[in-house]
Amino acid sequence: MAEASRTSEARRDAVFGRWVIFSPARSRRPTDLKSHGPANPSPGPDDGAPKPSCPFCLGRESECAPEIFRVPAPDASPSWQIRVIENLFPALRREAEPPAPEDEEPVGAGECAVRGFGFHDVVIETPHHEVRLWDLDAEGVGGVLLAYARRVQQLAEHPAVKYVQVFKNQGASAGASMAHSHSQMLGTPFVPPSVNSRLNCMKEVFESSGKCSLCAIQSKDILVSETHNFSAIVPFAASYPFEIWIIPRQHSSYFHETDQDKVLDLAGLLKSMLQKLCKQLNDPPFNYMIHSAPFGLSSSCLPYTHWFLQIVPQLSVIGGFEMGSGCHINPVFPEDAAKILREIDSS
Amino acid sequence: MAEASRTSEARRDAVFGRWVIFSPARSRRPTDLKSHGPANPSPGPDDGAPKPSCPFCLGRESECAPEIFRVPAPDASPSWQIRVIENLFPALRREAEPPAPEDEEPVGAGECAVRGFGFHDVVIETPHHEVRLWDLDAEGVGGVLLAYARRVQQLAEHPAVKYVQVFKNQGASAGASMAHSHSQMLGTPFVPPSVNSRLNCMKEVFESSGKCSLCAIQSKDILVSETHNFSAIVPFAASYPFEIWIIPRQHSSYFHETDQDKVLDLAGLLKSMLQKLCKQLNDPPFNYMIHSAPFGLSSSCLPYTHWFLQIVPQLSVIGGFEMGSGCHINPVFPEDAAKILREIDSS
Ligand SMILES: Nc1ncnc2c1ncn2[C@@H]1O[C@H](COP(=O)(O)OP(=O)(O)O[C@H]2O[C@H](CO)[C@@H](O)[C@H](O)[C@H]2O)[C@@H](O)[C@H]1O
Ligand SMILES: Nc1ncnc2c1ncn2[C@@H]1O[C@H](COP(=O)(O)OP(=O)(O)O[C@H]2O[C@H](CO)[C@@H](O)[C@H](O)[C@H]2O)[C@@H](O)[C@H]1O
Repeated sequence: MAEASRTSEARRDAVFGRWVIFSPARSRRPTDLKSHGPANPSPGPDDGAPKPSCPFCLGRESECAPEIFRVPAPDASPSWQIRVIENLFPALRREAEPPAPEDEEPVGAGECAVRGFGFHDVVIETPHHEVRLWDLDAEGVGGVLLAYARRVQQLAEHPAVKYVQVFKNQGASAGASMAHSHSQMLGTPFVPPSVNSRLNCMKEVFESSGKCSLCAIQSKDILVSETHNFSAIVPFAASYPFEIWIIPRQHSSYFHETDQDKVLDLAGLLKSMLQKLCKQLNDPPFNYMIHSAPFGLSSSCLPYTHWFLQIVPQLSVIGGFEMGSGCHINPVFPEDAAKILREIDSS
Repeated sequence: MAEASRTSEARRDAVFGRWVIFSPARSRRPTDLKSHGPANPSPGPDDGAPKPSCPFCLGRESECAPEIFRVPAPDASPSWQIRVIENLFPALRREAEPPAPEDEEPVGAGECAVRGFGFHDVVIETPHHEVRLWDLDAEGVGGVLLAYARRVQQLAEHPAVKYVQVFKNQGASAGASMAHSHSQMLGTPFVPPSVNSRLNCMKEVFESSGKCSLCAIQSKDILVSETHNFSAIVPFAASYPFEIWIIPRQHSSYFHETDQDKVLDLAGLLKSMLQKLCKQLNDPPFNYMIHSAPFGLSSSCLPYTHWFLQIVPQLSVIGGFEMGSGCHINPVFPEDAAKILREIDSS
């Protein structure tokens, strides 16, 4: 469909099975309320000196919750490059008793409650307050991704952990409460709702077409960039304007099983996508999430589970329509967003 | 569980089947970024004179998209009390050709796209710029609810409309672009994702227990208030702090079939809940959504579909964990929120 002739269109994707409404006209609506744009742009290098009160800064390690492991600085100084620590205000608690096997899979779909057992960790991506993830070189970004993978691997060995959600909040309107560059992961004693619906949808697609939904993506129109091992696309039914998915080109269920060479390749692509978003959208707040498979999946599920990393710049506020229906309204067609992102120089 | 001994707990509800993590400790975490609180409190009566530029104000009708119907002012003046109009920047377009029957239920769960056909309407709740919905008397609020029901009824008669999402955005951080008190509805040519998952979850509960998930709610701990026909509760697995559901006490699938007396009863309860939220949470931005059944449901589905109205004050920003996993983290236990809301005088 030619760009000029585009009006509204509704699309359903083959990964989450969600409908999204594309409506370019929506971006022209007026407002008499305060701007919806990025209310709090992320801190950048211009922000100046490290905040003396930031517990994530080098030298303030004692103000943090316990360290799980660290990646030492490459120059063999006493310093560190990355720290994985416990979250001091965890949503789920590692000290809580894990749910007993009979609580784990409560019968039926009725109400149920389990103890708040789980792991909530923070990954401090750099010792320096003013450095953003995409200011690091590809090796630096790769170190962060490898730290995720290593920690996910550790959590996968706990029998009561069913899933680990790895995510990053950058900027206050993306939910961040700490400015110092970091990400988080939460190991849950249940398979979260979106993971379940993703698996169900991909299973249905596989059963009807014999294909993995992500392996089946062909369109060059939505491609932003490609490396030997990964593709970066704006998904066919993106819920958010300029949303990007980075997908391994070879079918693979678990993020944490990615080998070191591939992780480095991923790191380069992730850095370049974050740079493109930063340039095109003026340093927007954003989130990224790694969508992997739940642990202990039966081997029959592996052919249709395929991990990917989703990047979502936060450009608008969600309203009652999205909250009520689960259907998003996106003013930017994926093909148009992909074209714009393809054309930006990321260096 | 006694309030003092509460740490974290994970709960799954019997309506959407979603897990929610309750973690009171989370509310104590520090921030070095700008406040997450209501960034843009809703305009109140103190805001003063009507905005000369507001197209929703009395006398500016010609600046609006076409009117669908109006509720005349009670005093038989040429004025109006409520107007239902077309949205000037619609997400879906009534002029578009409705999807052909073969597009309507695309085979399989794969990618699909349909023309952007649908109805996007605005309900102007009052002619006066500075009046908020809960400033109206119960009859006034009832008039708004009856206008929703009347318009939903009209849309239900269109063969290509599968669902109507009625919703209200109040305040910029709840997504509102217009300050003048209004709500919206979107009639979609597909059943939206959350409606599907709600139906599937309630069906499973019904099949395993023989009960409608909403009729089965018993607990007095989560009750905020009750009238002859409706209960207001903080749901057992509320995704958001101080979220309220108003539920018809008698099993009923469709909101728009509620009779006039019951609507008036609902209006009084809705007004009182909005007043309580306004008092307790200092005039927060909020959304409300009516969750009803899709049109043309087979009669075998009616025993487990039960409509309700969900009110969500917007107190915090969603982060990557929620976006990725679909699982919310709520720092306030429903029993605690219900107790606080019960005790506030709403008058
Ligand atoms: N000294 C210290 N040692 C160890 N850890 C420390 C610490 N000081 C603070 N922390 C932790 O560091 C984390 C920083 O995380 P983010 O800035 O990404 O967002 P946060 O988790 O606060 O909430 C956002 O993300 C979550 C999850 O998506 C949403 O629930 C929420 O609404 C949104 O604001 C916090 O979780 C905090 O508990
Ligand atoms: N003169 C006129 N005549 C008729 N209609 C007019 C008009 N001038 C403006 N409008 C319409 O009035 C509506 C006002 O709606 P709201 O303030 O509730 O939020 P909006 O729909 O902008 O977006 C919020 O809600 C939607 C749906 O939830 C989210 O997609 C979005 O991100 C969020 O900001 C707009 O939809 C606008 O198109």
